[in-house]
Amino acid sequence: MKQGRIIIVSGPSGVGKGTVLKEVMKNNPALRFSVSATTRKIRPGEIDGVHYYYIDKPRFEKMLENHEMLEHAEYAGNYYGTPEKAVNDALAQGISVVLEIEVQGALQVMLRRPDAISIFIAPPSYNELGRRLNGRGDTPPDVAAERLHIAVQECLNAPKYQYTIINDTVSEAAAQIQAILTAEACRSEYTTIQLKEDE
Amino acid sequence: MKQGRIIIVSGPSGVGKGTVLKEVMKNNPALRFSVSATTRKIRPGEIDGVHYYYIDKPRFEKMLENHEMLEHAEYAGNYYGTPEKAVNDALAQGISVVLEIEVQGALQVMLRRPDAISIFIAPPSYNELGRRLNGRGDTPPDVAAERLHIAVQECLNAPKYQYTIINDTVSEAAAQIQAILTAEACRSEYTTIQLKEDE
Repeated sequence: MKQGRIIIVSGPSGVGKGTVLKEVMKNNPALRFSVSATTRKIRPGEIDGVHYYYIDKPRFEKMLENHEMLEHAEYAGNYYGTPEKAVNDALAQGISVVLEIEVQGALQVMLRRPDAISIFIAPPSYNELGRRLNGRGDTPPDVAAERLHIAVQECLNAPKYQYTIINDTVSEAAAQIQAILTAEACRSEYTTIQLKEDE
Repeated sequence: MKQGRIIIVSGPSGVGKGTVLKEVMKNNPALRFSVSATTRKIRPGEIDGVHYYYIDKPRFEKMLENHEMLEHAEYAGNYYGTPEKAVNDALAQGISVVLEIEVQGALQVMLRRPDAISIFIAPPSYNELGRRLNGRGDTPPDVAAERLHIAVQECLNAPKYQYTIINDTVSEAAAQIQAILTAEACRSEYTTIQLKEDE
């Protein structure tokens, strides 16, 4: 059985990553989202091991010390990270694992796992990104401008990823990710030619 | 318009390269075979500029001196090579160019054009390769054994190519090459994100 692959996916908020990835997963039973660990409190409706692994700060810090996190970050006083063991267990079962993470986390994973596939999902244009970020049109103009600015800054990191997908339509973007997964499975280092006589 | 790409394709004879590539080309109008130059005499039914560019030895040697050949080899006292200018002209028009060449030529092109995509087409198994090489069953056993030996030796070079396709069925192999072309077009170095406001 072939090992699974780590697939890093990043892109500015509003670009439609979630929708595209859901579409890709529909056609790939051997593809799964990674579940992050967090030190923030569990919220009503959330399930431990599904939305996050909820662990306390000392345990998270112990895992960091032991280099058990593929990547991690701190937001609003809480830690978020990807436990490497869960990822490795899935890979060993032939399941590829999608890490939908921020640029900083993505760079950590690229360094640690050079065999990971990295994909940046970008908007078709500046104006369209503005429209998508402003979805329901109820965002105050200064907040919208700030979000757009952050999103543009994020897009400047696309060249650090192996692949950049322009999310013009969901079906096209999903097909391109599917092609990347197929092509990556054809890399010579993952292919064995059977050159011995059959028994 | 996007530049075309050089696509190097190798594989042992009998593996079915031609059939697979014809299938890929059906769905890719912007994909063309490169035409080689040769110093061997034109044969009845062949057309200059279609089957080969037929040139004389001094001219071929002059082109070698001027580094105008992407790759070249000598067989049975004649030169065969790929004139770089014709390839570059096609690429500039957004046409990708397939070089169906031997391993030695392929390695020359990889060194000279690190942006080339390289694909090795391999048989599904040793026994199946033997069957395909022995197509009509009218090959003397010692000749068949010799061909099989050469083919196996060629397959040992697959790891030098970026991708290895196992040609189990033509449609699957063609779909994998199609996926490689799609994925390669998504590489970040070939993708531009539009991050300026529309005029």
